[in-house]
Amino acid sequence: MQIAIVLYPDFTALDVIGPYEVLGRLPDTEVVFVAENPGLVRNDLGSLSINVVAQLAEVPNPDVVIVGGGPGQADQMADGALHTWLRSVDRSSTWMTSVCTGSLILAAAGILAGRRATSHWGALEQLAEFGVTPTDERVVIDGHYATAAGVSAGIDMALTLAGLIAGDDVAQAVQLLIEYAPQPPYNSGTKDAAPAEVVEKLFTLFAPS
Amino acid sequence: MQIAIVLYPDFTALDVIGPYEVLGRLPDTEVVFVAENPGLVRNDLGSLSINVVAQLAEVPNPDVVIVGGGPGQADQMADGALHTWLRSVDRSSTWMTSVCTGSLILAAAGILAGRRATSHWGALEQLAEFGVTPTDERVVIDGHYATAAGVSAGIDMALTLAGLIAGDDVAQAVQLLIEYAPQPPYNSGTKDAAPAEVVEKLFTLFAPS
Repeated sequence: MQIAIVLYPDFTALDVIGPYEVLGRLPDTEVVFVAENPGLVRNDLGSLSINVVAQLAEVPNPDVVIVGGGPGQADQMADGALHTWLRSVDRSSTWMTSVCTGSLILAAAGILAGRRATSHWGALEQLAEFGVTPTDERVVIDGHYATAAGVSAGIDMALTLAGLIAGDDVAQAVQLLIEYAPQPPYNSGTKDAAPAEVVEKLFTLFAPS
Repeated sequence: MQIAIVLYPDFTALDVIGPYEVLGRLPDTEVVFVAENPGLVRNDLGSLSINVVAQLAEVPNPDVVIVGGGPGQADQMADGALHTWLRSVDRSSTWMTSVCTGSLILAAAGILAGRRATSHWGALEQLAEFGVTPTDERVVIDGHYATAAGVSAGIDMALTLAGLIAGDDVAQAVQLLIEYAPQPPYNSGTKDAAPAEVVEKLFTLFAPS
């Protein structure tokens, strides 16, 4: 099984590293990071650079595609090489997946039309502009599309997918390996759960779109 | 605030990217990835290379230090440049932290003696060899040491630390930003919770030490 993880400048690292850590550990799996422009690709915080060795065209038939989100997503919404590649691999892949605002890129490429999908809570409604039904769930599976909510939700999406791909026992073994028994010290991970002053603090600190 | 994230060959990516995504988003924070041998540092799965630009000696006074784990931890247990650096920054840093088997490196460097600490469940008891009290909790704070259990536990450790460093409201805002409201599809993240056949499957598939 070949997994292609798409990177672009100003990506959010955990969006892709969460699913990578889960799906990359499945038996007989090869992971390749791909980009329209290979080389060192820098993340949104600016302090992390991942070395991407493969151009999109060098990975024509991945079994699983992972598209993460991040501030750089906005620059990947215009039709071009990435969209063309996504439409092409969509026809042959087993799973097309996204994390966070990565689903907006899939949607803009035209491959999610008529589907249910999720995204980061702050971007969810934008999916409707592309004929996609915004679905406020942490992991949404519709056909061979698996979309995850914001950033950390990619881990849950990947474990769900791991079960579908390799069986429940293998997925559970991976969960145990990465000791994924989360204990968040706060209950503030959704807009509904977070106190109003925390939502305001977020907009003050991070001014997300 | 300067955060130094230590990388070495065969590190586990999520160990460091989890805390990075949380602590790297705190206001007025600079993150620097450091290594004994800078350049492209490759992870345990072999498909991810992070470009490290700073040598240990170039980061003499970090406020927070993060040491992750992974199979490569075994090669970082002998006294040498990394241990010397860890002992040095231990004297000036506000927080020394580890994820997964990263705590074994801190322990081997001699800076956890007499402390309570945690590690990956499969490695926890090894801490005792270094005069450290193995503590089967997801996040352990003792003095200015914050240790996390396996891989994904670094996210919980970092959110806990974010609250101590920047206040509960900022930590909660980061939690909301990364939409950290985990919904694991299985309950198999600890050795106690995992069915016996899953533990066996793990040893068959991954043969951890």
